[in-house]
Amino acid sequence: MNYGEKALSLHEKWQGKIEVVSRVNIKTRDELSVAYTPGVAAPCLKIKENINKSYVYTRRKNLVAVITDGSAVLGLGDIGPEAGMPVMEGKCALFKEFADVDAFPICVKSHDVEEIVRTVYLISGSFGGINLEDIAAPRCFEIEKRLKEICDIPVFHDDQHGTAIVVGSAVINALKVTGKKISDIKAVINGAGSAGIAIAKHLLLLGVKNLIMVDRFGIIVDGNENMNEAQIEIAAITNPMKIKGDLSDALKGADLFIGVSAPNVVTEEMVRSMADKPILFPMANPIPEIMPDRAIQAGAYIVGTGRSDFPNQINNVLAFPGIFRGALDAMATDINEEMKLSATYAIAEYIDDKDLSIENIIPSALDRKVAEKVAKAVAAAAEKSGAVRKM
Amino acid sequence: MNYGEKALSLHEKWQGKIEVVSRVNIKTRDELSVAYTPGVAAPCLKIKENINKSYVYTRRKNLVAVITDGSAVLGLGDIGPEAGMPVMEGKCALFKEFADVDAFPICVKSHDVEEIVRTVYLISGSFGGINLEDIAAPRCFEIEKRLKEICDIPVFHDDQHGTAIVVGSAVINALKVTGKKISDIKAVINGAGSAGIAIAKHLLLLGVKNLIMVDRFGIIVDGNENMNEAQIEIAAITNPMKIKGDLSDALKGADLFIGVSAPNVVTEEMVRSMADKPILFPMANPIPEIMPDRAIQAGAYIVGTGRSDFPNQINNVLAFPGIFRGALDAMATDINEEMKLSATYAIAEYIDDKDLSIENIIPSALDRKVAEKVAKAVAAAAEKSGAVRKM
Repeated sequence: MNYGEKALSLHEKWQGKIEVVSRVNIKTRDELSVAYTPGVAAPCLKIKENINKSYVYTRRKNLVAVITDGSAVLGLGDIGPEAGMPVMEGKCALFKEFADVDAFPICVKSHDVEEIVRTVYLISGSFGGINLEDIAAPRCFEIEKRLKEICDIPVFHDDQHGTAIVVGSAVINALKVTGKKISDIKAVINGAGSAGIAIAKHLLLLGVKNLIMVDRFGIIVDGNENMNEAQIEIAAITNPMKIKGDLSDALKGADLFIGVSAPNVVTEEMVRSMADKPILFPMANPIPEIMPDRAIQAGAYIVGTGRSDFPNQINNVLAFPGIFRGALDAMATDINEEMKLSATYAIAEYIDDKDLSIENIIPSALDRKVAEKVAKAVAAAAEKSGAVRKM
Repeated sequence: MNYGEKALSLHEKWQGKIEVVSRVNIKTRDELSVAYTPGVAAPCLKIKENINKSYVYTRRKNLVAVITDGSAVLGLGDIGPEAGMPVMEGKCALFKEFADVDAFPICVKSHDVEEIVRTVYLISGSFGGINLEDIAAPRCFEIEKRLKEICDIPVFHDDQHGTAIVVGSAVINALKVTGKKISDIKAVINGAGSAGIAIAKHLLLLGVKNLIMVDRFGIIVDGNENMNEAQIEIAAITNPMKIKGDLSDALKGADLFIGVSAPNVVTEEMVRSMADKPILFPMANPIPEIMPDRAIQAGAYIVGTGRSDFPNQINNVLAFPGIFRGALDAMATDINEEMKLSATYAIAEYIDDKDLSIENIIPSALDRKVAEKVAKAVAAAAEKSGAVRKM
């Protein structure tokens, strides 16, 4: 039985991967009078006086909405909002299992930026955070930007920032193993969509200077006429040597390859053209840009993928549960760059330097203690950067 | 300690009256691969082929949204969406406790009909039903009407129909005790807001012929210039004798009084002016239109209120959990008149005729078996009326 068949029969049996339960007993008249009318009027009036009290008297403090429009679900593309729900429920189950965050899946039946922004804003008072999920680029950029401006709770597009954070951690530790400095390396990212661009911005923050992005139509560089708005923006802050050409041109002498693109687009020859001790993170799923064994045969020193059946699995579940746990614990109003950087270092530092090796640069995706460490770091960064609710 | 103080300290301790939990174990790589990627792609694709499969592979089949704009919360008026949340959470806890329905509270930050309708519609694909709650009249009529037209899941404004159903059950049983026929009685409803108008329409369906509604400005009658649109509509189908005047005029010779208005507006003299064996349901909360002891001193035969400290408590919790349980079980696409009538009779018939008495016309609000009976009746009515999803 393969995973697909098994998933169908288990999903039918589960009847949903999440459930809403009651935290109160309502068996007696007194219990009814306190949990509901007339007693419930008292907390209502406290919140009316001060909306921040919704963090004291309701579930909001532990509650994240996982929101999609179903337009970029897994590798399946635009399958529609209802069809995206099994993924959203899975994400919510992971939030709960890994960080005791209550997460609730909502699919929005619209692909219109205005409508999605307005809908999410209008329901945001019910939640302590918003996790955007599987929304197609470039729409996802605008939606996230606008929501961050108008909402007073954290808004986080996991496909962008969760990925960028975990890749950042993997890069930090891989460089420790190879003994290279992040400011000295040449890095190449293949795939200039939402994940690729978020990874690029994050690597720049982490100290990468020489960073080249590549898309289907070639290297991202000022003047390339195939670029969309987000790519034009990223062209201005990457590729300092203004290199032109394709992926094979970009990879010559590179220390690091990151793939968020398509299966088998990296050849052994390309790997051989890279610098000494090259690091490759071909993360296309399920078939990476180059299979790990072929990459290693061609001279790759460290390889990480999105897959669980090879070493160094780069999986968002290392980041998002702990990030929201920390944001909620701090009653954060945002997930800002300081918080993202703190999460990145927390994941990297979870592995002691003495335990780092070419096959151990990133914690196991199933290690639940990672979220705890990430949460503490993120909450501290929220406090320090002042992105917390003033009660 | 009164209920208000107790509610504040308990709400703070509870940290929310609902919680979202995971129904799956995700401890191993295999479990992760089935509940999440890559296995989860299979149920996604099944739903993409046929949206109805979301009732098989996600929690939708058991999930109701409890939605407010915070504009008419309890007797507190327009306290804002966030401040309404403790009530919504309480309602969700009751859904779960009484009928194992997963209910999730959502407050919408808008008082605009268009915006509320659009927002609820856009998120409706995540749910198997919509319970509207504490939305002010006359906005609530338009919102419910529009949503029923555009959504393919049940939409139910509990303040209207839940109240009407439970009052209907109480009327049926009270008439059995007095030996009067529903088609013969003169009924008066004081308070022509959303609950009053819904009760009126429901009583007409149950067979009441002579029904008079009264509002602050007097009797609802064709030509009264103070009436809003909903009242003009109801004037056309009530008050067949076209009586004019105030509440005291309406009550002369009445067999039944229903109050959804304000404290102490019914005098003993008014009760004395009613017909033989008068039935009074003064339901203003917490202080009824007339206190039960005073009503009985003045000759009332049967009295029911919204309060738990007097006999015959008329409480919506007798209706909404079972109604949605039945609608979800039948995969209903609507909660139509047939379903509402079946719920009304199911609640009434829950008490054997031999057990009916002036102090026992309605089941206890805390009796969880009522919901079970209501659910069966509602599901059967959904099937019979054809308001069910074709898989």
